[in-house]
Amino acid sequence: MIIILASVVAAAGRIDEALALSQEHVERSRAEPGCLAHAVHRDTEDPHRLVFVEQWQDMAALQAHFAVPASREFAKALSTMTTQPPELSLFDASPVPMPGRPA
Amino acid sequence: MIIILASVVAAAGRIDEALALSQEHVERSRAEPGCLAHAVHRDTEDPHRLVFVEQWQDMAALQAHFAVPASREFAKALSTMTTQPPELSLFDASPVPMPGRPA
Repeated sequence: MIIILASVVAAAGRIDEALALSQEHVERSRAEPGCLAHAVHRDTEDPHRLVFVEQWQDMAALQAHFAVPASREFAKALSTMTTQPPELSLFDASPVPMPGRPA
Repeated sequence: MIIILASVVAAAGRIDEALALSQEHVERSRAEPGCLAHAVHRDTEDPHRLVFVEQWQDMAALQAHFAVPASREFAKALSTMTTQPPELSLFDASPVPMPGRPA
């Protein structure tokens, strides 16, 4: 599984626009093959920061996601509303049980 | 590295209280050994849901975190403000480069 933790900082006055665009992207992404979870959240410390938390079945599913024209258009459109490139971290991840609890 | 993705749903009228308590917990946790990242966000689809995204150096650091009295008190206090047990997923994770980009 691939986890993506990412965030963007919206330019002044553009957070609502950036959020609406991001929520459309989330809805569309959830319907894509291999998308296990996809969500956008508002950072509680920086009112201009949006945080993306995504789970993909594998790297192939993620690469297919990046190749979807609508994904590219989203990234391009969002870049016009943000002050800096997105922060984006990818992790190869596997679920583990809570310590002390059976799997 | 251990990633935690968790969320709680605040009871009606208690989201601000739950958020303030959570932000205190986040600040305290960030100072703990092995805490690589810790943040609380607001879900953009459910105004009562808080989302926690945490990164811990290893399971030992996370177990030490859970054993801190203030962590236990936080969980207990937060449970009085929420409508259901927290959703919590743990992942054993390792960073990977963006596809197509060098590490």
